[in-house]
Amino acid sequence: MSKDSVKLLNFWPSMFGLRVHYALDLKGVSYDYQEESLLNKSKELLEANPIYTKIPVLIHNGKPICESLVIVDYIDIVWPGSHKLLPEDPYEKAVARFWADFGDKKLYDAGNRLIRAMGEEHKKAGEDFKWALMKIDEALGTIAPGKPFFGGDAMNFADVGLAPFICWFKGYQKVGGFVLPGPEEWPNLHKWVDAVNSVDAIKKSTPSPDKVAEFAEVIRKRVLGAA
Amino acid sequence: MSKDSVKLLNFWPSMFGLRVHYALDLKGVSYDYQEESLLNKSKELLEANPIYTKIPVLIHNGKPICESLVIVDYIDIVWPGSHKLLPEDPYEKAVARFWADFGDKKLYDAGNRLIRAMGEEHKKAGEDFKWALMKIDEALGTIAPGKPFFGGDAMNFADVGLAPFICWFKGYQKVGGFVLPGPEEWPNLHKWVDAVNSVDAIKKSTPSPDKVAEFAEVIRKRVLGAA
Repeated sequence: MSKDSVKLLNFWPSMFGLRVHYALDLKGVSYDYQEESLLNKSKELLEANPIYTKIPVLIHNGKPICESLVIVDYIDIVWPGSHKLLPEDPYEKAVARFWADFGDKKLYDAGNRLIRAMGEEHKKAGEDFKWALMKIDEALGTIAPGKPFFGGDAMNFADVGLAPFICWFKGYQKVGGFVLPGPEEWPNLHKWVDAVNSVDAIKKSTPSPDKVAEFAEVIRKRVLGAA
Repeated sequence: MSKDSVKLLNFWPSMFGLRVHYALDLKGVSYDYQEESLLNKSKELLEANPIYTKIPVLIHNGKPICESLVIVDYIDIVWPGSHKLLPEDPYEKAVARFWADFGDKKLYDAGNRLIRAMGEEHKKAGEDFKWALMKIDEALGTIAPGKPFFGGDAMNFADVGLAPFICWFKGYQKVGGFVLPGPEEWPNLHKWVDAVNSVDAIKKSTPSPDKVAEFAEVIRKRVLGAA
């Protein structure tokens, strides 16, 4: 395994890139990192992901793997190690895939509109974002009652799919002008957030919420300025 | 296996539902079918998929599995049979997942805008749709040179993810006011379409392109009428 060449092309605040960081770090895989500029993408990125020309891309022994959840799936097969992300049971596996994908379908979508939308659509985005977190709170209570993670006592594929949004919560609240309910209303969610934030492999690559919030506000101001 | 209870909740023209039909039929799995009305969804659907309240849902021995590619993945594990959809090799598996997902990200998205968008956005949707098919033509030539399917001589996960869009080609052309390039320009795509259409398991549940086109035109007219 020491002869493996593993490289991640990414842009630091990307929740999709963080999924790949988390999966690699939870497995203890060593890898090179290349920060990409979205305004001046490297030739390597354009060649590795000609369809979407987007980060993250994992390049493993010269072969590019694209799309964050596809990459996490790949990592889980190639480096099973002691920390398997996808459950063995087919139904539990489907549930983990469903909730990881929920990050794309609901959290990212609502978050993106919080940054880019105006008026009623912007207000609706805040409601959608809170709805999505409420559903995650409920799901944690149903899927892993009494446990900190979707994966029970350790993070699984669903946790890796959703955890990268945590460092965006502050920024989303700032650009959205709302405050998320606390642990009394969403006990499972807050327990999960605390548990995720205390995992060493997660701390390693997660940017500070302040820095992410600053980034979110810069983009929001640009959008407002152009409107 | 004969004691398994397998039921598909679906709406007949859904490309997402067709993925599930195709996977089950390629495996030779027997299942019950329940047609849903999108305007009057069954209690069973609302309870089985409370997050999205959308078809398709596969209910296997009382447990609901949601999201079409998650369902196809589940089917491939539970009924491996003689026709495995996901390749064993991790890189080939990632490639198959990437192209199945491309159906959601590019074909469905552009197709949806062909039906619902106006003016420049509608024109752009037609260009995006043709671009996506051109990329599929190229990918087939790279991934499976000389072979009919992404899976080589038999359909794999990528084929199941993309094939349901074929019966929509006629409708998309009608509502988009364009004609797709022929086999001379897109040899791999047309060879793939012919190969898919000649598979018995595919013929079994694919609606006629005329019927799908009629459906697409009805929705388009409603959208135009409401604009």
